[in-house]
Amino acid sequence: QIVEELKSFFGGGILAGVSVLISAGPTREPIDPVRYISNRSSGKMGYAIAEAAARAGAKVSLVTGPTALKTPPVNEVTWVESSEEMYRCVMSKVPFADIYIGAAAVADYAPETIADRKIKKNQSEMVLRLRKTQDILSAVSASPKRPFTVGFAAETDNLEDYAREKLATKALDMVAANWVGRDKGGFENDDNALFVCWNGGDTYLPLASKKTIAEQLIRLIAERYHAQNSAKDSR
Amino acid sequence: QIVEELKSFFGGGILAGVSVLISAGPTREPIDPVRYISNRSSGKMGYAIAEAAARAGAKVSLVTGPTALKTPPVNEVTWVESSEEMYRCVMSKVPFADIYIGAAAVADYAPETIADRKIKKNQSEMVLRLRKTQDILSAVSASPKRPFTVGFAAETDNLEDYAREKLATKALDMVAANWVGRDKGGFENDDNALFVCWNGGDTYLPLASKKTIAEQLIRLIAERYHAQNSAKDSR
Repeated sequence: QIVEELKSFFGGGILAGVSVLISAGPTREPIDPVRYISNRSSGKMGYAIAEAAARAGAKVSLVTGPTALKTPPVNEVTWVESSEEMYRCVMSKVPFADIYIGAAAVADYAPETIADRKIKKNQSEMVLRLRKTQDILSAVSASPKRPFTVGFAAETDNLEDYAREKLATKALDMVAANWVGRDKGGFENDDNALFVCWNGGDTYLPLASKKTIAEQLIRLIAERYHAQNSAKDSR
Repeated sequence: QIVEELKSFFGGGILAGVSVLISAGPTREPIDPVRYISNRSSGKMGYAIAEAAARAGAKVSLVTGPTALKTPPVNEVTWVESSEEMYRCVMSKVPFADIYIGAAAVADYAPETIADRKIKKNQSEMVLRLRKTQDILSAVSASPKRPFTVGFAAETDNLEDYAREKLATKALDMVAANWVGRDKGGFENDDNALFVCWNGGDTYLPLASKKTIAEQLIRLIAERYHAQNSAKDSR
């Protein structure tokens, strides 16, 4: 607390005094009281970004799905499980955020109905009906007092194309994209490499520790955020 | 190693010299390179049983799905992910086991096909076709050189009935069953309570730490195992 106040007082950090809301980790979509659908996100990238933002002087609120990690030293940590819970929690905090970084691997589909009781296994086949979940990124980007909105993408192929498409269709300020299923980087790894794009530019952050990648990404975000704000101010 | 040899030499422990194979944790059934179906098993109960068996003098081989736990000090630990991997791993070790304890929460159903690439989310609804997985417990119980076979059950209701039914239909030597979704005990908790049944008897192990429950269960297993063996020997 004191350290942070001193930092702000001395104007320390490229995100001093800026409120950053970050979502991280996977979500779990319940099938019944025991079973769920999830994904391979470890939360490492999102946690590293939260820590880098805090070191850059930002007030950081982290909304996280279930992970096995120690939470980083930030201002606020909220644990959620399903995409529905994450949606509600993020949207309640968006009005207070200057920057939103959606680093969580939110499930795109969730079971249509959740069984109250454990489903008994009588049949040799089963059909699980899924419905699309709420799109948190689009909702944040469309919200009234809209923060600078950064989305993530994880793809097995055509990474750059998907990233640019996501930037446009969801009206985001920046998209950070990583490969999945390659030799190195991405889910469950300590290293990562990113393709980052925004309106009017893009760059590659080559393979490095998630800590280093997070610092580089926070620098890019701070640059674009301040550029947008000074453009607004000088209008 | 030396400690174990000394233990065996002095005949220490109710399972001295007995080979115990234990499966623990959840399995993950891949939907595509990123998404999977899993369940809320933390692996704590299975790991506690492995540790209790080792303390009782047994040679312990642990086959475990993905968990966030430190592995217990046993003779051998093998990590697996899918129910298919767990089936193969367990079956390869069964011929060398005197006792098998199936404490893993193996998925009953897995996606029929696994997508090579990340599934794109175009439709508002999706149908996931699942097929029944291999039944590891039944396969162990039906194997030629059959170990003393202990199954687990986790149920939201009618616990005792399901446990006795499982004992009979899968031709097991013992079933340990716990409630799911109650206030205390079971998945993801540090405490547990069990209903244990075998041919000719049953008992309740009331709510206690998983360490205590594991010790009580190992004592029950050792009793029944030695009783069966002396019955065989005196035939």
